[in-house]
Amino acid sequence: MNAEILAVGTELLMGQIVNTNAQYISERLNSIGINVYFHSVVGDNPKRLESSIKLALERSDLVVITGGLGPTKDDITKEKVAEVFGKRMVLHEESLKRIKDYFVKLGREMTDNNAKQAYFPEGSIVIENNKGTAPGCIIESDNKFVVILPGPPREMQPMFDESVMPYLQKDSGYKIVSKYIRTFGIGESKLEEMIMDLVDKQEDVTIATYAKMGEVTVRLTCKCPLSEEGFDKICPFEDEIVKRLGSYVYSTENENLEKVVTKMLLENNLTIAIAESCTGGLICSKLVSVSGVSKVFNRGIISYSNDSKVQDLGVNEDTIKKYGAVSTQTAIEMAEGVKRIAGTDIGVSITGIAGPEGGTAEKPVGLMYMALAYKGNTVCKKLNLSGDRERIINVASLHVLDLIRRQIGGIEI
Amino acid sequence: MNAEILAVGTELLMGQIVNTNAQYISERLNSIGINVYFHSVVGDNPKRLESSIKLALERSDLVVITGGLGPTKDDITKEKVAEVFGKRMVLHEESLKRIKDYFVKLGREMTDNNAKQAYFPEGSIVIENNKGTAPGCIIESDNKFVVILPGPPREMQPMFDESVMPYLQKDSGYKIVSKYIRTFGIGESKLEEMIMDLVDKQEDVTIATYAKMGEVTVRLTCKCPLSEEGFDKICPFEDEIVKRLGSYVYSTENENLEKVVTKMLLENNLTIAIAESCTGGLICSKLVSVSGVSKVFNRGIISYSNDSKVQDLGVNEDTIKKYGAVSTQTAIEMAEGVKRIAGTDIGVSITGIAGPEGGTAEKPVGLMYMALAYKGNTVCKKLNLSGDRERIINVASLHVLDLIRRQIGGIEI
Repeated sequence: MNAEILAVGTELLMGQIVNTNAQYISERLNSIGINVYFHSVVGDNPKRLESSIKLALERSDLVVITGGLGPTKDDITKEKVAEVFGKRMVLHEESLKRIKDYFVKLGREMTDNNAKQAYFPEGSIVIENNKGTAPGCIIESDNKFVVILPGPPREMQPMFDESVMPYLQKDSGYKIVSKYIRTFGIGESKLEEMIMDLVDKQEDVTIATYAKMGEVTVRLTCKCPLSEEGFDKICPFEDEIVKRLGSYVYSTENENLEKVVTKMLLENNLTIAIAESCTGGLICSKLVSVSGVSKVFNRGIISYSNDSKVQDLGVNEDTIKKYGAVSTQTAIEMAEGVKRIAGTDIGVSITGIAGPEGGTAEKPVGLMYMALAYKGNTVCKKLNLSGDRERIINVASLHVLDLIRRQIGGIEI
Repeated sequence: MNAEILAVGTELLMGQIVNTNAQYISERLNSIGINVYFHSVVGDNPKRLESSIKLALERSDLVVITGGLGPTKDDITKEKVAEVFGKRMVLHEESLKRIKDYFVKLGREMTDNNAKQAYFPEGSIVIENNKGTAPGCIIESDNKFVVILPGPPREMQPMFDESVMPYLQKDSGYKIVSKYIRTFGIGESKLEEMIMDLVDKQEDVTIATYAKMGEVTVRLTCKCPLSEEGFDKICPFEDEIVKRLGSYVYSTENENLEKVVTKMLLENNLTIAIAESCTGGLICSKLVSVSGVSKVFNRGIISYSNDSKVQDLGVNEDTIKKYGAVSTQTAIEMAEGVKRIAGTDIGVSITGIAGPEGGTAEKPVGLMYMALAYKGNTVCKKLNLSGDRERIINVASLHVLDLIRRQIGGIEI
């Protein structure tokens, strides 16, 4: 079965709100093995709405329509669907009673136009709305399924989960299972080259890649009967891809780098302190976003000024004078300094030029040195990043997290 | 002119990401008097993509297509548009050079498939991408306009604003001018009550409010011919609203709090140091996101452990023992300590419980104390925040920035 999601609402076309309903419903339909082929949005215009409904019914088996169920003249979704199917609109007594009760509970008077919300195309299965006045409905006709739901997400979502999902699942008999392989330090095109033959020969398992701010995620998806586990088809592909991508892979559990690093620190019972210059606290704040990090994260020193590097981290003034604040030597002294002062197992540092100002021919914007002191040994790595200030700071912070991951894991850097 | 926005990407149909591009582009097209009649989303499927492009060109004068410009085989947006128009794909040398340079700067090897991103339908106007490798393009043919842009919002948005908007504006003859009044510390409904009469009597000027993570923005918009200034209609409303909202207003230039605070520090020639506990570096990293902050931001101490509060900030051990790390007394000593150690004009601190663990009946999750030492005086304010860990940390960091703004500006807290 393939599906289309049609949202009705001029406010979407005006750009006042985002169509999050399409995402919500897509995710759920995919999870039970229904392929979503199209999303559409149309305004409260009778002619364009009618043509959009007709088009959706031509090209899709299941059409989920959201919005246009309000009490006003503009709200014509149910009426137009009835028209397209050649059905009458009939009163659903129970819904009328619920709407009346709803107004009593609110202590407000029900206006006449609200009664309109209790009418449905003949033969509909009516879906209760516990968060608002507009009920939804399901219509099965001419081998097509149409689901109509209200637009506000907080009304639509429980109705979809509690009524529509069980209805569809019974029919589809399928579900989709997914696994995610998250990588850092490799470009999307290079990664794809490395697994291209697997992508090309995919049959039951779909393999797709997504790039975001220095990271690439590989998604493996498999459609299978409700009764099956599904992962048995995915696992061989997952194993092969993880093997090929090697140490670029940092998670097969769809966790972000800060989460992975925090888990490694906790599992290995290792404490950490961080000295940041150019990244200005972003690495610390990423770690602190992970609940439970307080057991391993001791402190961060945002040594933005040279004074602070000397005073708070014990960097030698001469080192800064001789090599500059952005240098291997300073990075190393920062990492060793913060480790010593905090008395932690690991000390990490980064110093660099985030731009857009401050770059020179010799030390351009994007030049970074990061260092890590651990087990009596300090490593330092140079980075040349590109992009605007925001991107440079973000990608730099990921590089530092990845350095921590690699050093704890004993992986080459 | 009427428009349609067509997004290409299976990840949208899978429900992995939300189509925020459609909202962004709709808002802007509407602002220059172009009506958006349809949004569509289609996957990376050649047949369905082709039929969607054809349908869009049948029913719309302007088609804005986002996504499918990557280097991989799946990415076929430009190729399909060329096919529909019967145009060849030709190499754009300048783009190829830019892509090559991009990889050189990254220190990565360009793979062959990246060259694909430098090919465009013959006769296209190519749009530079300063945030990624995929350029966009504009094609004018058979009285139709097609704009093709990359999918990632951070690449698409500046390309749309800097290249597509001026191109379209030239054609529409209208422009929309907007002003933004940004506030912190007041709820949306209370704010709305305070300006409701102005909203109700609006004619030429549209007044709308938007709430986001503790902040509320008021947008004033006016549509006018290209030849006019437009702001003369907006200004009286702006003045009145700013007067009514008083010190809640922190910017009338649509700048964020960290930008406003950094400007105030620079203008008043005041240096600052920050001691963060529960916010874990987020305040520092917000400040550091502002270019030029190095002149005033001296250092940050992320004193996540009590050790660090004592060692790095000089907080009295007895204070922590007696009152706890989350207390007025500790916050004050942290602010005064970081000011003294850094030798700055201002010292700021925050300590609290971000959750979800660590709360008690006496000191619940969301309890925060923030302090600011300046001109021989230290103020401290207690906060009770709600929400999940992410929200609490974010809103807390905004409260601290707002505290700095108020203290420098001599506004009551």
